Amino acid sequence: MGFLVHPTLEKDTIFVDRSNALQIRLVDDARFFWLMIIPETAATELHELNEDIAESLWKMTRHLGAALKTHCDAAKINTAAIGNMVPQLHVHIVARHNDDAAWPQTIWGQGDMQRLGETTKAVRLSTIQGWLGRM
Amino acid sequence: MGFLVHPTLEKDTIFVDRSNALQIRLVDDARFFWLMIIPETAATELHELNEDIAESLWKMTRHLGAALKTHCDAAKINTAAIGNMVPQLHVHIVARHNDDAAWPQTIWGQGDMQRLGETTKAVRLSTIQGWLGRM
Repeated sequence: MGFLVHPTLEKDTIFVDRSNALQIRLVDDARFFWLMIIPETAATELHELNEDIAESLWKMTRHLGAALKTHCDAAKINTAAIGNMVPQLHVHIVARHNDDAAWPQTIWGQGDMQRLGETTKAVRLSTIQGWLGRM
Repeated sequence: MGFLVHPTLEKDTIFVDRSNALQIRLVDDARFFWLMIIPETAATELHELNEDIAESLWKMTRHLGAALKTHCDAAKINTAAIGNMVPQLHVHIVARHNDDAAWPQTIWGQGDMQRLGETTKAVRLSTIQGWLGRM
């Protein structure tokens, strides 16, 4: 059976690309430039990943974090694997700013998502694809 | 100049051990079994780490996550590098349970820390040292 993204993640994110068994997705929230990496495995914890996927995930996490930090001139990159509500393993990478909607708190459980407008969404998707092309 | 742990992290955590330029610390909060890894570098972001420390950090993060999950029979391990309040790079690894003080929310910014009693602290420190000895 093929890999299926959890319905909640499917609803809240947009597929960008696939690389080494990782799905790179954009979270559909205009409040933050927020990325998600979903390894295409049944793992629910980082320590359950096999070495190959773990290494790819770590490399991708740092690559996207670096790109986001520069692109957004972010104060901080927040990186996390939580999964209390959606057990499917997914890693958040979020650009944070001193004047954003949740600063200095974490973003999870803070207010409601604000869906991306079509133009912003298209620009972000293209930007991320550029970062993936430079790996 | 030697590496200095940020005063806030120094106050809220207890040193356990050092391994490959990583400090392993126990967060002084009885509400959660909560570990912290602090790389002994000036980096504030995961992508700023050199390859050696990045690899050690990733290995240690997954090793401690696996040990915590089993030891605590945790519902979920939460792993995160946030740093909005304390910029010094530090990785949280937290055992979560369905009936804990913050579930299913994240633990950051939720209520006040409850300092560990001396017995619990000693037991946890000894437990973590055992995990480090088995790497």
